[in-house]
Amino acid sequence: MPMIKVELLKGRSIEQKREFAEIVTRETARILKCRPEVVDIVFHDIEPHDWANGGKLNADK
Amino acid sequence: MPMIKVELLKGRSIEQKREFAEIVTRETARILKCRPEVVDIVFHDIEPHDWANGGKLNADK
Amino acid sequence: MPMIKVELLKGRSIEQKREFAEIVTRETARILKCRPEVVDIVFHDIEPHDWANGGKLNADK
Amino acid sequence: MPMIKVELLKGRSIEQKREFAEIVTRETARILKCRPEVVDIVFHDIEPHDWANGGKLNADK
Amino acid sequence: MPMIKVELLKGRSIEQKREFAEIVTRETARILKCRPEVVDIVFHDIEPHDWANGGKLNADK
Amino acid sequence: MPMIKVELLKGRSIEQKREFAEIVTRETARILKCRPEVVDIVFHDIEPHDWANGGKLNADK
Repeated sequence: MPMIKVELLKGRSIEQKREFAEIVTRETARILKCRPEVVDIVFHDIEPHDWANGGKLNADK
Repeated sequence: MPMIKVELLKGRSIEQKREFAEIVTRETARILKCRPEVVDIVFHDIEPHDWANGGKLNADK
Repeated sequence: MPMIKVELLKGRSIEQKREFAEIVTRETARILKCRPEVVDIVFHDIEPHDWANGGKLNADK
Repeated sequence: MPMIKVELLKGRSIEQKREFAEIVTRETARILKCRPEVVDIVFHDIEPHDWANGGKLNADK
Repeated sequence: MPMIKVELLKGRSIEQKREFAEIVTRETARILKCRPEVVDIVFHDIEPHDWANGGKLNADK
Repeated sequence: MPMIKVELLKGRSIEQKREFAEIVTRETARILKCRPEVVDIVFHDIEPHDWANGGKLNADK
């Protein structure tokens, strides 16, 4: 607690996720005033054919 | 905004997702009175062994 | 199954949700080839101060 | 209804999911007073590099 | 980890949620082989006009 | 895209959410290499009796 869920288009590297986790946890702990240990972050990679915006799949754009 | 998440048993084709995205975005924009560009739809395919109903995995039905 | 979750800014009426549920269920059943009875739709109303886009809360826009 | 979503680190077996679904459905029906048939459980397996706690990816621990 | 999210129609008591949390955490720890301390359960109460099944809002049934 | 969902115990102020949205959007755009305009953040405040950890509701701790 807090739990942060990130849905993002597939293709980001583990290095990017690592940096995101580190920095967003630090900022979450600072702003929401909690210990970093209670911050969970989960990434869900989404395929381009599984994400539509404006009625069009990303795979078709 | 709005964000629409669809959890469905694995096995539907990209053509079905494409049609779903197109039509549901159009209806969402019409009924909720927003621009189609702000409608996001994300599909999550679920494996039959990852979905249970009535206490039984779909893979076992 | 399928389960459809809709996050939307607070303020839509029950009539809009009723129409959305009716039409999106009908289209889901038709496109994904399932019985309407297995389609669940859940709405989550989000307050303008609980939704940010581009780094700004909707309440501040 | 109810819908139960379980996010868990990848690696549990189908046997564990089967037992979980059976027992949690039974307990849900008993405690929340509903029929087992209306209980849906969905598992989302998360890769160790997609789950961070305390600012560190599980893959790095 | 694991994180369990329960969406349920509004109206269950805190006593029911307390019992659910206690028993489902115990069973989760036993079946998935983890410590109870790492099990998080979050309840989302859904209003009858925010949940539709078969194209009909629960508030209209 | 990306969509970030934050579940947190009720009680944080709008000022905290505003700062969180601003900073996490900026860092997300920088690390994941996307425009800030495509970053959505949604907060879900959870009541202490709706969040359990280790089998105990937060309201009972």
